[in-house]
Formats: sequence, C-alpha cells, structure tokens
Amino acid sequence: MGMSARLSNMSTQGRYCLFQDYSTMQTKRKAGELMRRYEEKELQQEMELVEKYLSEYLRDPGYGGAVGNILRDMENSKGKRLRPRLLLMASRYGKDLDPAVRERLCRLGALVELVHMASLIHDDIVDDAPLRRGLPTTQSKYGKDMAVYAGDLILSRIVQSLFRDGFYQVGALFGDAVESMCLGELGQMECRGRDDVTVEQYLRNIYGKTAALCRLACLAGAVESGCSEEVQAQLEQLGINFGYMFQIRDDLLDFISDTEEEGKLTQMDFREGILTLPVLYAMQDQQARKRITGLLQAAREGAFGADQARDLKTIVAASGGLAKAAADMEMYAERALQAIETLPDHGVSAVFRELLQAKCKVSAAG
Amino acid sequence: MGMSARLSNMSTQGRYCLFQDYSTMQTKRKAGELMRRYEEKELQQEMELVEKYLSEYLRDPGYGGAVGNILRDMENSKGKRLRPRLLLMASRYGKDLDPAVRERLCRLGALVELVHMASLIHDDIVDDAPLRRGLPTTQSKYGKDMAVYAGDLILSRIVQSLFRDGFYQVGALFGDAVESMCLGELGQMECRGRDDVTVEQYLRNIYGKTAALCRLACLAGAVESGCSEEVQAQLEQLGINFGYMFQIRDDLLDFISDTEEEGKLTQMDFREGILTLPVLYAMQDQQARKRITGLLQAAREGAFGADQARDLKTIVAASGGLAKAAADMEMYAERALQAIETLPDHGVSAVFRELLQAKCKVSAAG
Repeated sequence: MGMSARLSNMSTQGRYCLFQDYSTMQTKRKAGELMRRYEEKELQQEMELVEKYLSEYLRDPGYGGAVGNILRDMENSKGKRLRPRLLLMASRYGKDLDPAVRERLCRLGALVELVHMASLIHDDIVDDAPLRRGLPTTQSKYGKDMAVYAGDLILSRIVQSLFRDGFYQVGALFGDAVESMCLGELGQMECRGRDDVTVEQYLRNIYGKTAALCRLACLAGAVESGCSEEVQAQLEQLGINFGYMFQIRDDLLDFISDTEEEGKLTQMDFREGILTLPVLYAMQDQQARKRITGLLQAAREGAFGADQARDLKTIVAASGGLAKAAADMEMYAERALQAIETLPDHGVSAVFRELLQAKCKVSAAG
Repeated sequence: MGMSARLSNMSTQGRYCLFQDYSTMQTKRKAGELMRRYEEKELQQEMELVEKYLSEYLRDPGYGGAVGNILRDMENSKGKRLRPRLLLMASRYGKDLDPAVRERLCRLGALVELVHMASLIHDDIVDDAPLRRGLPTTQSKYGKDMAVYAGDLILSRIVQSLFRDGFYQVGALFGDAVESMCLGELGQMECRGRDDVTVEQYLRNIYGKTAALCRLACLAGAVESGCSEEVQAQLEQLGINFGYMFQIRDDLLDFISDTEEEGKLTQMDFREGILTLPVLYAMQDQQARKRITGLLQAAREGAFGADQARDLKTIVAASGGLAKAAADMEMYAERALQAIETLPDHGVSAVFRELLQAKCKVSAAG
C-alpha cells in the first residue's frame, strides 16, 4: 500500500469506527471536516500575526547603508513559513489559551522562522549560492562579509526577544537547535566529496540540517502552551520525524526533478559532492558503487553534465536506491502519523495529517 | 599634563587628602596597596575558574572531524581575557557575595569571553586574516565555511548556558551587545575604501566593534552581583569609555608601530581602506586631505608600500592627526577614571586605575 493510500485510510479510520454504524461515522467525518476548516482559519489568522512580528524583528536598525536593505530583503523573501506553522499547530494541544498567550505563541513562531532565516543566510555563504527561491541571496547581492553579520544580527535579535519577552522555558531549546544545525552543516561539509559516507552519517547530518528545527518548533509550541510532558514528548517525536521526512523528500526532489523546480538545478547535491540517501543506498551495490564513484570524480573535475546526470539517475533507480530512499521517507511520515494518533483528539490533528500528506508527495519524473 | 601624570596624580589624591596630615596619607596609601594586592590575588584565582568554564563551553561535541579541532584551537589561543577580567572587577562593587555567586560570575565571565571569541572568528572571515596572535585563524586553517559555523556553534553554547544557568537578568544584554557588534562591523565595511568618512561614523563603528562588549562586561558584572542602579550606571560608563579608549589605542598602535607588534603589519587598516581616527583628524586639513586621498587610491590599487606608509605617517603627524587622536584616547581614559572616582570606595578601584594606566600607554615611534 502506497503512502497516500495509507494516509487517507488513517485519516478516516478512527479507533472506534468498528463499533459505530455508518451514519454516525458520516456525522463524525463531517464534524471532523468542520473542525479542520475551523483550525485552518484560526491558523491563518495567527500566521498573519507571525508576519507582523517578523516585520518587527527585521526592523531597520537605522544604521544607514546596506543593513536596512538586507533586513528588508529578508522580510520580502516570503518563505513557506512551515516552522511557525508547526509551532502553532503543536500549541493547539495545550491548555485553552487566552488571546495574550496566543499572541506570545505567534511571537515565538516568528522567532523560530528567524532561526531558519539566519541559517539560510549562513548556509548560502557556504554554498556560494546565487539564488534562493528565485531571488538573489544576501551573500551574492551584498557580499559574504555582509551576510556573515546579517545572520549574526538576526541571531542577536532572537536572543534579545527570548529574554525580554520572558521565554525562559524554551530559550535553551533554541540554543540546542542552533548547535545541532551547526553540527549538521559542519558534518555535511566533512562528508563533501567523499565516497565513504554512511547512511548513519547522512541521517545525523539531516537531523541537524532540518529535523532539529522542526523538533524545536513542535516542542516549543508544546511547552509554551502548557502541554503535559507526555504530549510534549509526542509532539517532539512528531517534529523530529516530520523533519527527517521533509529533508529526505527535498533530497529526492533534488535528485529526480528534471526542471528547475524549487529554484535549484537537478542533482545539485551530487554536483557539489554531497551524497544523499538515494545515492548512498545505490552505493551498497558494488557494481553501482564503482560507476557512481566514477561520476563523483567527474563532478570533482567539473565534468558532470546532462549525460552524467542521466547516467546517475539510471544507475540509482536500477539499483533500488530511489525506492529505498522513498520507503525511508514514508517510514518517517508513518512515525509522524503514529505520534499524531497517540495525541489527544483535536481538530488540528486533521490539519497535521493533511500537511504530512502534502509534504510526503514526490512527483517523480524518473 | 600628560595622561600618565594625571593618572598617577588622581590615584594618590583622595577627596579628603587636603584635610589629612602626611603620615595618615602614607598609612592610607600602604593600606590601599595591600587592598590592591589582595584584589589582584582574588581576581587571579577567579580567572582560573573562568578558564575552567571556557574549557567546558568549548568541549568537543563528539561529532568527529574538524569541529573538535576548531574548538580545541580556540581553547589554546590564550587571549588576554580582558573582558572577563572587567566583568569580575565590576562585580566587586556588588554585595558581599557567597562562593556560589562568585562562581556564577566566573561562568558569566567565560560567556563574555566566548562572545569575543565568536566575533573574532567571524571577523577573521571578513578580514581574510591568515593570523591572529601569531596563530593561524580558523578560516585560514579550516576554510571560511567551517569558520561561519564554528562561530555560530559558540554563540549557540552561550545561549544554552544563559538560559540553563538562569542568567535571565543579563541575557538580553548579551543580545544587545551582539547586535551592536554586528552593526559596528557592518558600518565599518560600509566605510571601507571611502574618503568621506566622518569622525562620528568612526566613533559609532568602534562603539560596536569594542565598546559595546566592554559595556556588557562591566554592566553584566554589576547587575549579576546586585549593584544598585546608580552603581550599575557608573560601571556601564566605565565599560563604554574603557572600550573607546582601548580601540583608539589599538588603531593608534596599528598606525604608528614600526614592528609587527600585536601580530599585525603597520597601517593595515589604511591598506584595507579603513580610515582610523589619526587619519580622519589629519584629513580635516585640506592640504593633508588631498595627499591622503592620493595614498588611499594607491592602497586601492595595491600600490601602498613602505614609502607610502612613511609618507602617510609624516603627513598625519604634521597635520596634528596623531596628537588629536591621542588626546581623544586620553579623554576617554579620563572619563573612565571619573566613573571610578564616583564609585563606592573599594580595593578594586586601584586595580581598575592600574589597568587604565597600562592600556592607555602607546609607545609611539612616530
């Protein structure tokens, strides 16, 4: 059974449906849909407040020069705002919250997004990336030097707010997430260009690159909304597994997309000497390994063109690397789903399931 | 009257000395000297604890690869530890503190030093510096990419400790200092290569580059040790003015030293297109301005050698730029002294005066 089938199955199968007649089930389903829509609308409103806080955090320090421009660019580079959304969704499982607390949660959502922004700026320096979401990166537009400090400036604003707004319970978690993110990126850099990278190293690196911040989003939302420790732990697992799934999907997309979807060239990772999950699985086959090592050498020498890309895709698909990576992605999605199912019943669960379903999709061309 | 004369004068002239006979004065002076020695010894012991905490913060995350090496290098790059020293000295004006609180202050001192370390790593990326204190910089040894994340990793450890160790009162001040430091560096980058920089812009930049962190050290020490708000404000002023003095001295040394003292080539700032205070004052003379602009053009074109350096020094000295900058340095030292004199009487005041005296010295060769 494929992921989508399993997902749509789970979302209509309650634990009690065996004991319920059809019409009760239908009523429940309708009620569930209404709840989902209600939660979506609430989330939408809160996300607008997140945007307001983001603008506030990215305010021009009035120092003249490029600083203000950099921050304005960041404000305008509309991302998917996935991490604040995760945080707000997780917070729904908390106590019934008064408007003041909900506003605090929106502020916290903006802070999680700022961590993401700062990391993108510093990542783009390292990747020498000219574009991000179709717009010039900070480093390409203003220079690496400016980008180093622009990222640091955003980090400093996060710290100021965490203390001034009294986020004492979750502040250290922000520090943990940033440490993990650094280690993930440093780990990836260590692995770059090497052909002896293991699946374990890959997973450790993507934990830092992506899962750690999704964990922070869900856990901070849970803690700050007063969830029980048990619910906190479930939401933490949800965040971690969502993060793994999300990064494997991203790596699959980079590997298989033929177009410049997501603002990237296809197989950019491989061109840069980074071996992602489909390739790593393929390399467990000795025959495939030999040919892939040759292609990696070509990439090192700048001799990796359209022909090589096609070859690589064929080798990786034939040796089952693509299928294995997709299966892992589905496994993490399943784990995230399991975390949702053990959470207290809430309208937002349907929104979570829908998000998982949407993010787990890979329109494979290969 | 020169700075040294004024300083030694002030340190022996109490407000009451006019009403005291000579022998009382002598006894007081002896007692003062004993107090100073006592404070020095106490500080020495506490600085050892700062080192212990620094090692703890720079622990290897056990992630393999270069990460651990980078942190080990940082631990071994023994700096002057000026900022934790300032913090501990400022904390002496607080309540009589039990050993547990003194240990907390040492921890806080280590955190202030870590901010300094992280900023040096990121500054060296921007400056493309091969050496720092005679040792290879992180970026030259491990690459700019590693250096970006090594700096971020240290910042993340600071945030973790500020929350986990409950430094809620001073945490936001750390954020403020990092923001100021970023703005100072960004501001300096904006000014680089330009010949229309004003003294005001220069002062604003060195506030961020240096004074903001000295302010943090003194203010955090004052707050965490329970100083009254009035004493906090005086210590804050002491830190700010000490910082201005310290940076102007650094810039003077860069300008006049003939040797590679402080691990730098002479007039490195000018070679990199950065106009410091002596040059800015010299440029207020139209004749000198014209010649300096020509030399700046030579620096831009990489045609700034020993002859140009000698010319620049002659022009700046003749137009009074050196003297004016030195006078400003003394003015900030004097302001710092004034802050000390308004503080409650304490043995550490003599240590502060001595530090000011030591740091205000510029052995001018030009």
